[in-house]
Amino acid sequence: MPTVFVGDGFIAADRAALQVSDLAIQRGYGIFDFFKTLGGKPIFLEDHLDRFFHSAGQMRLDIGKSRDELRVIIDELQRANGIPDSGIRITLTGGYSPDGYSLARPNLVITQQPLQVIVSEEMPRSMRLISWPHQRQMADVKTIDYLMAIWLQPQIRDSGADDVLYYRDGFISECPRSNFFIVTPNDTVVTPYRHILKGITRLKVLEIAASRYRVEQRDLHVDELKTAKEAFITSTTKQVVPVVQVDQQIIGGGASGEIARWLNGEVYRLARS
Amino acid sequence: MPTVFVGDGFIAADRAALQVSDLAIQRGYGIFDFFKTLGGKPIFLEDHLDRFFHSAGQMRLDIGKSRDELRVIIDELQRANGIPDSGIRITLTGGYSPDGYSLARPNLVITQQPLQVIVSEEMPRSMRLISWPHQRQMADVKTIDYLMAIWLQPQIRDSGADDVLYYRDGFISECPRSNFFIVTPNDTVVTPYRHILKGITRLKVLEIAASRYRVEQRDLHVDELKTAKEAFITSTTKQVVPVVQVDQQIIGGGASGEIARWLNGEVYRLARS
Repeated sequence: MPTVFVGDGFIAADRAALQVSDLAIQRGYGIFDFFKTLGGKPIFLEDHLDRFFHSAGQMRLDIGKSRDELRVIIDELQRANGIPDSGIRITLTGGYSPDGYSLARPNLVITQQPLQVIVSEEMPRSMRLISWPHQRQMADVKTIDYLMAIWLQPQIRDSGADDVLYYRDGFISECPRSNFFIVTPNDTVVTPYRHILKGITRLKVLEIAASRYRVEQRDLHVDELKTAKEAFITSTTKQVVPVVQVDQQIIGGGASGEIARWLNGEVYRLARS
Repeated sequence: MPTVFVGDGFIAADRAALQVSDLAIQRGYGIFDFFKTLGGKPIFLEDHLDRFFHSAGQMRLDIGKSRDELRVIIDELQRANGIPDSGIRITLTGGYSPDGYSLARPNLVITQQPLQVIVSEEMPRSMRLISWPHQRQMADVKTIDYLMAIWLQPQIRDSGADDVLYYRDGFISECPRSNFFIVTPNDTVVTPYRHILKGITRLKVLEIAASRYRVEQRDLHVDELKTAKEAFITSTTKQVVPVVQVDQQIIGGGASGEIARWLNGEVYRLARS
């Protein structure tokens, strides 16, 4: 039974709870961030803390802790749990609201679990996506709003796909938990730059890709899937995974791309450096 | 300290909690409904249960109780709390998800609180709204997603307004917790019919209005605010409240409308009949 940080202290996971008056339960109001630890070392922690503080600021939630205090809590949590390769999630909710509508003092919850997906330096298996017209609200904030993503799970399963790719007005934004890239016929690496959550792995991939390829952050039309040499997604959990099909559109002849393979290896090494 | 129903039993409100693995906290996934009791009598209960079952079905959440069982729980809750004039909220969440993403066995939470707003047969005070471009996802389902509504509270306050009116592509949909109507220059009562949550008070008002006026459920363009004789909102909590201003647009010369006044009185009487 892992230990969880809730409010101001540590508690066993099965007793880690929030009162039903919390605005996450009442009104779906909250943010989070999620990072990995490998061999006990938090990966890209400062990037994740940057984004967590950005999300909190955007959503007018007072974290009530400094970055240093958060680092100390994360450290103690790791010591208590002893899970070297883990995922750590920091959640901040709207708090216990007397009227069920107004923001209150936020509740901070930090959980740690063993990694659910083991990635490697090797080529990850490829994915197939279905597309769906949807735009996440507050797209640049890592809110807890995954209503559409959870709701779409049966459609994804029934289509034999692995995940969903959101688009709106013909333009691709992102997957629910990952960013989306293509490689154009002239070897340019392209990813949307707006109406998305800017992932930490996306950031690393952009930096790495720029060392070898032309890189463009711009609007990406669904029609570009027809000519893309490669497509891939990036995420903290999955690293870099080739996408070989979106709906009926086969990408790269159905084979995993070389650039995705290279990027995955580089991200793997960077995380462990 | 009121009693709350959680899961399968009754518990004091300050101990009514959900584990942090619940999908409402993890992913903002849940539905609810809300109705009033007056003198201990639930108002329009069957309509609210209809909608609650509809919401649960749409969101693939198994309530785990029959309508009769829900009525019995509501009855026991009322007896335990002894609050004749109250608001009762039935919430159903995505449940304790082992992976924080897949639907689990839903958690049912039923709370009761004293009415926060006392309505009367008399003319309610009027409201001013600001408009905001937003479309609720899963609009016809009463989800717990009020992210935008909670986030907009400071803007509403700073504008000296009482609430926000959502629109998209020039068409009005609804307020976060109420439906929106106008009365046209030729005394037609108009309200949007799609991209909205269909409120129970909206339903009653449509029935009542049709006995005396021409009624239209159709797309409603923001430009129609310029010529509207009246505007009003309908909600379980507030009944019928005139809207005298949206952004800079004064409606009905800034005076509360006669039709809104009449409808409010009729809804008041219907609820107590």
